[in-house]
Amino acid sequence: MTKEFENLNWIAADWGTSHLRLWLMDDQDKVLQHIASDRGMSSLMPDQFETTLVEMVGDALPAQGDVPVICCGMAGSRQGWSEAPYGNVPCRPPSIDQATRVKTDDPRLSVFILPGIKQLPAADVMRGEETQISGFLAESPNFNGVLCLPGTHCKWVHISAGEVVSFRTFMTGEMFALICNNSVLRHSVTDDGWDAKAFEVAVSDAISRPSAVSGNLFSIRAESLLCDLDSAAARARISGLLIGIELAAARPYWLGQDVVIVGASGIATAYSTALAQQGAQTRSVIAEDMTLNGLRAAHANLAEIAQ
Amino acid sequence: MTKEFENLNWIAADWGTSHLRLWLMDDQDKVLQHIASDRGMSSLMPDQFETTLVEMVGDALPAQGDVPVICCGMAGSRQGWSEAPYGNVPCRPPSIDQATRVKTDDPRLSVFILPGIKQLPAADVMRGEETQISGFLAESPNFNGVLCLPGTHCKWVHISAGEVVSFRTFMTGEMFALICNNSVLRHSVTDDGWDAKAFEVAVSDAISRPSAVSGNLFSIRAESLLCDLDSAAARARISGLLIGIELAAARPYWLGQDVVIVGASGIATAYSTALAQQGAQTRSVIAEDMTLNGLRAAHANLAEIAQ
Repeated sequence: MTKEFENLNWIAADWGTSHLRLWLMDDQDKVLQHIASDRGMSSLMPDQFETTLVEMVGDALPAQGDVPVICCGMAGSRQGWSEAPYGNVPCRPPSIDQATRVKTDDPRLSVFILPGIKQLPAADVMRGEETQISGFLAESPNFNGVLCLPGTHCKWVHISAGEVVSFRTFMTGEMFALICNNSVLRHSVTDDGWDAKAFEVAVSDAISRPSAVSGNLFSIRAESLLCDLDSAAARARISGLLIGIELAAARPYWLGQDVVIVGASGIATAYSTALAQQGAQTRSVIAEDMTLNGLRAAHANLAEIAQ
Repeated sequence: MTKEFENLNWIAADWGTSHLRLWLMDDQDKVLQHIASDRGMSSLMPDQFETTLVEMVGDALPAQGDVPVICCGMAGSRQGWSEAPYGNVPCRPPSIDQATRVKTDDPRLSVFILPGIKQLPAADVMRGEETQISGFLAESPNFNGVLCLPGTHCKWVHISAGEVVSFRTFMTGEMFALICNNSVLRHSVTDDGWDAKAFEVAVSDAISRPSAVSGNLFSIRAESLLCDLDSAAARARISGLLIGIELAAARPYWLGQDVVIVGASGIATAYSTALAQQGAQTRSVIAEDMTLNGLRAAHANLAEIAQ
């Protein structure tokens, strides 16, 4: 252990499908170091999680005693490190006493995996977002409204009295990536440009005629061939059509609700723009901050239990 | 040239994105040999079309004189063998006198590429389907109604007085393949099973609530995780949701219309089942027969011009 880590108190881990984010935390709950890597669940066998963790933080671990590692995300899935059974809606975001303990070969690690949340009916699941929700509620315990968590699979979550009441997942982000990278439209989307007006028109179009989306997507290809539609417009239209059809379906989640978007990246901005266009004002918080805050809340809870 | 090809009169070619189908035809317009290959446009550079053709049919070509090769499909696209400019709706399916002549190094070939059809607005294109339409109209010249041509990109074509009046393309087949093979739902679709009841329910659901499709797709994943949804039901539901949203948008094409489905494969059966469920009775013709008939009609036209 080097001197810079002598105050290491615990490790926060957001272990998703395609990413791993680690925060080495001191005894004042301040970040000593942040590590981001692409060693997500999908690239690891169950027995590779511990070795991956030791490779990445081993030098920071003390010679004596063990360090709590609090994980959220797909590490807790059936294909992950160790399955953490889901909580059931309606429920508070799962706390540390519901976490799955993972036995490790390395005695310096004391690993906890936080559960996800499930819903039946309508069947739905989340792993990772519940910790962002927990982080948000730690700052806004009296929030009654809706969280929108854009990403590969965008989730809309109805929160009341500190509980997740219901939620709904849309495959929008994944469909966008597949269409831009793997479908015939990849020939029409050749760069990362963006056309705000084209996005706005596509959102409106999809909200008013959701069934037309599959045909309107092919029109983008035809306009590339026949009218030299530029890549920025094509990309923004694909995004607008997919976010638009999602907003049409998610209307009960945003109409007349207090909506907070968890995210500040390009995709989160696209959602807030599309919602503003529909008359729904939203505010945003930074997703990574919410994740870390949720893991901090779990750690605080662990300290209380230990007392 | 071997004896079996001494009556070779012309060659019919359906040269698509991912396939090449050749028919060696005698002077009675009968098929001497049918050759199917995966050497489609997407696997070839422009200068490889002629060599591919010579490799595949060279042994059948006569020592003296040239043989007409009549092609339809993506060989006529900008990335294909030689660009064949589109016809414009409303129009009859393009005939041989609108075909693009391709100069070849091999003097035994006399190559014609039939044009596709374009529409503006709404922007849309077809290449290959126009020849199937021509083949259908050769048998049913007085047809007034709608042709549905399922496939990677399903096309609905309104036919009146022998002309293509309007058409609309949906990316349904391509989306189905991407979702089953490349999205998170690939974990839920592990075999080629089919559940007819699950398909029926999904079609109805998508027609009545088209905007919900993106959320309902993710529910399939959640039900796999939470309820052990089987692969046959998952696959049929994905298909039903995607065909259902297409039928919702294509309603003006099938409601109260005489609809003929060009195709007899699994996907064509799925369309006829879904349409029957909506009260629309359809009949089917075999797609490959229509392609060959369309190429035969073009060849007959060529013979007339030559006289």
